[in-house]
Amino acid sequence: MNLTKTMLSLAVGGAIALSSSAFADDKIKIGVSYPTPTHAWAAGMNWHAEQAEKRLEALYPDVDLILVNSPDPSAQASALEDLVSVSQIDALVVLPFESEPLTDPVLNVKKSGALITVVDRGLSQPGIEDIYVAGNNPELGRVSAQYMKGRLSDGDNIVILRGIPTTIDNERFDAFMAEIEGSGINVLDHKHANWNRDDGFEVMQDFLSRFPDIDAVWAQDDDIAIGVVAALEQAGRTGDGMFVVGGAGMKETIKSIADGNELQPVDVLYPPAMIATAMDVTVAAFKSNGPVAGRYILGATLITQENAMQFYFPDSPF
Amino acid sequence: MNLTKTMLSLAVGGAIALSSSAFADDKIKIGVSYPTPTHAWAAGMNWHAEQAEKRLEALYPDVDLILVNSPDPSAQASALEDLVSVSQIDALVVLPFESEPLTDPVLNVKKSGALITVVDRGLSQPGIEDIYVAGNNPELGRVSAQYMKGRLSDGDNIVILRGIPTTIDNERFDAFMAEIEGSGINVLDHKHANWNRDDGFEVMQDFLSRFPDIDAVWAQDDDIAIGVVAALEQAGRTGDGMFVVGGAGMKETIKSIADGNELQPVDVLYPPAMIATAMDVTVAAFKSNGPVAGRYILGATLITQENAMQFYFPDSPF
Repeated sequence: MNLTKTMLSLAVGGAIALSSSAFADDKIKIGVSYPTPTHAWAAGMNWHAEQAEKRLEALYPDVDLILVNSPDPSAQASALEDLVSVSQIDALVVLPFESEPLTDPVLNVKKSGALITVVDRGLSQPGIEDIYVAGNNPELGRVSAQYMKGRLSDGDNIVILRGIPTTIDNERFDAFMAEIEGSGINVLDHKHANWNRDDGFEVMQDFLSRFPDIDAVWAQDDDIAIGVVAALEQAGRTGDGMFVVGGAGMKETIKSIADGNELQPVDVLYPPAMIATAMDVTVAAFKSNGPVAGRYILGATLITQENAMQFYFPDSPF
Repeated sequence: MNLTKTMLSLAVGGAIALSSSAFADDKIKIGVSYPTPTHAWAAGMNWHAEQAEKRLEALYPDVDLILVNSPDPSAQASALEDLVSVSQIDALVVLPFESEPLTDPVLNVKKSGALITVVDRGLSQPGIEDIYVAGNNPELGRVSAQYMKGRLSDGDNIVILRGIPTTIDNERFDAFMAEIEGSGINVLDHKHANWNRDDGFEVMQDFLSRFPDIDAVWAQDDDIAIGVVAALEQAGRTGDGMFVVGGAGMKETIKSIADGNELQPVDVLYPPAMIATAMDVTVAAFKSNGPVAGRYILGATLITQENAMQFYFPDSPF
C-alpha cells in the first residue's frame, strides 16, 4: 500500500491522478498523540515514542513524525484538531487517554482522509481505526498462571493482587483463574491493589497477617510487585522458595531478573514500547509493498533470566 | 527488542555478554520459505517476497534475506534444515505448504534459537511461532455480506460459490451467513467451486439454469469470479444491476474496479503481499525499539473504485 494525503483526497473525489501528487507537501506527515508521562509506564511510552521518531526519521528522510503529548482527554482532543488543521497529517498514531471522549475527535481525523492507528486502548465505536496495536491482557494472565503451575504443586497456596477495577483487570484475572483451575493450587484471596506501589504494600501486609502459609504471589504489575516485595521483606517472609510474578516490563525489574533475582524470577511483558511498534507499522503503510491494516496483538512474553536483556532499555525511564 | 543469534545462544547458556557478538557473522540472516508459484495467488506471493527483499536489503545493509521457494512439503522441510545448517539464520519467515508436515521442521528451526514468523497457515502445534501474520477469513465473509446488504433489499436473491472444503472456507461462509441473517436476502443455494475458474464457470452455469431470478453472486474468490462472470456473459444475464463479489485482490480485478466495472464493483482483500508484511515485522525485531511478537491479523479491506489504486501492483503476476 502506498498512499498520500493528496492521493486519498483525490480518491474520495473519484479522480485518481498520481501526477497530482506534485501539489502535495513533499513529506509524509504522521501525527503521534499520547498522554503526558503521569506515571512510570506512560513515561516509558513517551521515551520510546521519541526513540522511534529519531530512528524512523533517520531511516526515511521524507517521513516527518510529529509527536504531541497531552495532559488530559480534552487537551488531547485539541491536539488532534491541530494535527489535522495545522500539520495536515497523512496518518495518526493515537494512544487515547480515555476511550469515550477521544472517539469523536479521532473520527474527525479519519474524515480528513488520514490513516488511523490506535494503540493500547480501543475507541468506543468499532471500525474507526485502520490498525489496532495492543498488548494481550488475557494472555498476560494465562502466561502468569502457566509459570505458577510450573513452579508450584497440588496444595500450594497463592494470593493475588489485582489492578484498578477495569475490563483490562478482569481479562487478566479471568484468564489467570481459568488457567490455574484444576491444578490443585489454592487461591487464598484476591484484592485490588490498583497498579500502585503503596496499595500493593498495604494489601500484601493484610494477606501476610491473615495467611501464615503463602507459597507465591501474583502481583500482575511491576508497581504492585514493588509494594509486595517490601511487605514480604518487612515481614521476613522472603524465604522457603517464595516468589512474586509481576507484569509490564519495568526496566529495574528486568535488570534484576537478568541478575538472577530469586524472589522475582520472571516478569510478563506489557510494554510501553508498543507505541514504537505502532509507529513502525504506520510508516510501513507508506513504504512497504505489504498490506498494513487490521489487528496486531502483541504477545505477553515471559521474561526470564535467559531472555531479559533483549527487553532491557537502560536509558528509558521505565 | 534487539537480538542476534549469538546473543540468543549465549543467553541460553546463561552468560549474556554483548561484547561476544564480535564472534557473530556481521549480517542479520533471515530465511524466508514459501511454496513455489503453483497458482496465481502463490505467484503474487513470490513476487511480493522478492520486492520486499530488495526494499529491505537496500534500507538495511546489514540484513541478508535468504528467499527459498519449495515445490512440496518435504522439499520445504529440507529447505528449512539448510537454512539452519548452511545459512545459520537468525530468524525464519515461513508460509507452510501444509500445517502438519511442516510443524516439526519449523520447531527444529526454533530450537536453533531463531525467531519464528509464521504466515497465513498456522502450524499444528500452538506456541511455536513468535509472530503470526495472516489474513482474516471471518472478516472476509462479513465484509462481503455487509456490501451485499448495502446493495440489496428484502426479498432479493443471491447464490454463493464456496472454495475448497477447508476451515478457511467454513470461516468465510459462516461469517457471511451470520451477517446476512435477518436482512431478508435469500440465499438460493451454495456450492463448492474450489477457488478455481473452471469450477466457478460450471457451478454458475448450474445456478443460472435452476434459478431464473438471481440479483447478485458471492464468488468469495477472484478466480471463481472469473468463471462466474464468463457464465453470466454467456447466458446474457449481466444486466438488471447484477453484480459479483470476489475476494483476494487479483491485479486484473483491482484494475477493472478502478476503471469502474459495474459487474464486479468491489473486491475484498486477502493479499499475497502479506508475506512482505511478515518480512517487515521480522526485520523490525532486529531494528526497532518496539516489541515484535504476537498475532498480526490483517484486515479484509473492501476495495472500491475509490481506493483500488492503493492496492494495484501492475508488475505483480497476481
